[in-house]
Amino acid sequence: MCVACDYTIHRASHNFGWNRDFAPALVAKSGSTIHFECIDSSAGQLGEGSTVQSVVDLDFGKVNPVTGPVYVEGAEPGDALKVTIRKFVPSGIGWTANIPGFGLLADQFTDPAIHVWTYDPQSMAPSLYGPGGRVPLKPFAGTIGVAPAEPGLHSVVPPRRVGGNLDIRDITEGVTLYLPIEVEGALFSIGDTHAAQGDGEVCGTAIESRMDVEATLEVVKGMKLESPRFTTPGPVTRHLDAAGYEVTTGIGPDLMTGAREAVMRMVDLLAADHGMNPVDAYMLCSVCGDLRISEIVDMPNWVVSFYFPRIVFS
Amino acid sequence: MCVACDYTIHRASHNFGWNRDFAPALVAKSGSTIHFECIDSSAGQLGEGSTVQSVVDLDFGKVNPVTGPVYVEGAEPGDALKVTIRKFVPSGIGWTANIPGFGLLADQFTDPAIHVWTYDPQSMAPSLYGPGGRVPLKPFAGTIGVAPAEPGLHSVVPPRRVGGNLDIRDITEGVTLYLPIEVEGALFSIGDTHAAQGDGEVCGTAIESRMDVEATLEVVKGMKLESPRFTTPGPVTRHLDAAGYEVTTGIGPDLMTGAREAVMRMVDLLAADHGMNPVDAYMLCSVCGDLRISEIVDMPNWVVSFYFPRIVFS
Repeated sequence: MCVACDYTIHRASHNFGWNRDFAPALVAKSGSTIHFECIDSSAGQLGEGSTVQSVVDLDFGKVNPVTGPVYVEGAEPGDALKVTIRKFVPSGIGWTANIPGFGLLADQFTDPAIHVWTYDPQSMAPSLYGPGGRVPLKPFAGTIGVAPAEPGLHSVVPPRRVGGNLDIRDITEGVTLYLPIEVEGALFSIGDTHAAQGDGEVCGTAIESRMDVEATLEVVKGMKLESPRFTTPGPVTRHLDAAGYEVTTGIGPDLMTGAREAVMRMVDLLAADHGMNPVDAYMLCSVCGDLRISEIVDMPNWVVSFYFPRIVFS
Repeated sequence: MCVACDYTIHRASHNFGWNRDFAPALVAKSGSTIHFECIDSSAGQLGEGSTVQSVVDLDFGKVNPVTGPVYVEGAEPGDALKVTIRKFVPSGIGWTANIPGFGLLADQFTDPAIHVWTYDPQSMAPSLYGPGGRVPLKPFAGTIGVAPAEPGLHSVVPPRRVGGNLDIRDITEGVTLYLPIEVEGALFSIGDTHAAQGDGEVCGTAIESRMDVEATLEVVKGMKLESPRFTTPGPVTRHLDAAGYEVTTGIGPDLMTGAREAVMRMVDLLAADHGMNPVDAYMLCSVCGDLRISEIVDMPNWVVSFYFPRIVFS
């Protein structure tokens, strides 16, 4: 399928979690381009035909599989791994769920909920959200990283300085990402592919969607990077900003409280303006709305803003 | 100067702080369009010819003056004030300072510093930053709000649910802002005009620049708004996103620590790539770089990202 790829890693080669002692699925030269088959973050537990009961039955021991790991020759601790995202091959099917106990407003949205999405994987046209609206799509891999130095199995849920479950919605096609390497060979893995997500991923899930990814892995010797960084070749939000934004705010001395307030206000606004159930508004916020820190210096109160793109209802 | 304005409030009509007992500078009908002459956030203490010593000598009792207040007829607690930003009339001169004790990295940047900007107030073309780069401009008012219900004088520094020093860089021309009203007449004031600022205003100052503002004030009865919100009529970052972004990250269980780390890493990167002094890089970050919350749900670690627009060095 990939004409320029040096290798393919099949979806069977996946792990749940990070471990420096996982056997490599592939040993590759620095500079190799690899086709990764990624499964969705439920490892196939959720998808077409799923219901609220499927969310209840979700086995948390089997979430967020990552395809890999790739042992990159010459990679040593203190180096960085330069990952160039070449291409996504989306599947056309996805899901968004409110999973009890998980998400920014988990205390308020205690019941399971799910929305199943279908989209055109060729055109990637904005996708219909059943309860209302049409969401612009831009695929990326939510989880992308290398193995931590500390031995043993590490949960895939939290991101770390070596990357992992970063859920940065702008690590899309054409982006160059640098990851700090902590173990020999780097042991790169990727997964948790999303068709769309807003900054924050506020309900805890995006448009979770199985897709393949092509990426080039290259060792940068002695870069001594402290935390992940990346470069985007162009604008990051032009697929959704044309009609402007509705923006709500949370103001106070704690960023987390401010973020929660800004999102609550947007859920209220969408529910009132579009007659949506609050949980549907909350899941919609997660797939396309953005949390930004407007000011973090006017002591003692900071402003966190939540930006919802108006194009969704245009 | 304003052909469609009903009133003008001269720059002499300003206050330092908020107080429900300040005498109105103007009593206006709901729906009035008003021309506000605003002075810069140093109240003229900093500007053309200022030096580091001017920052040292800054009188903090005389910062962030706001022009007003306007008593809007019919406004009562529980209503909202709809503020439509019509136009800015920029002065062409501005300053950015590192003020000791103030700013996200105040512990690291303890020495005063200042950069004085000049720009073309007609074309608003990107403005040269002496230490390197050219910053796209987009004016807005950093401080915009109404009087709090609680009697007495309130510092102008922290923003509140009634607005104030929000420093939201997207409250620009064409935007409609809604503010919760807590006192009869609302008592609206505005000031702290900026020629440009990034999300976060990380060093504590923007391109602080005297300019006039035209705005329409309208009472929305019984809106029962919890916190400020606004609507932008179109995209908010197209003046600076064309060349993409350099992005650094801070990952961990505390959003403030993550924000600090992301900004530190960007200061390091700009200093290394462009041979800048760290404090110059820090001030540059404040006027055009953006703090975003990439994910706030992958327990226990959140990702805060700092986006620096590459067009500044294109």
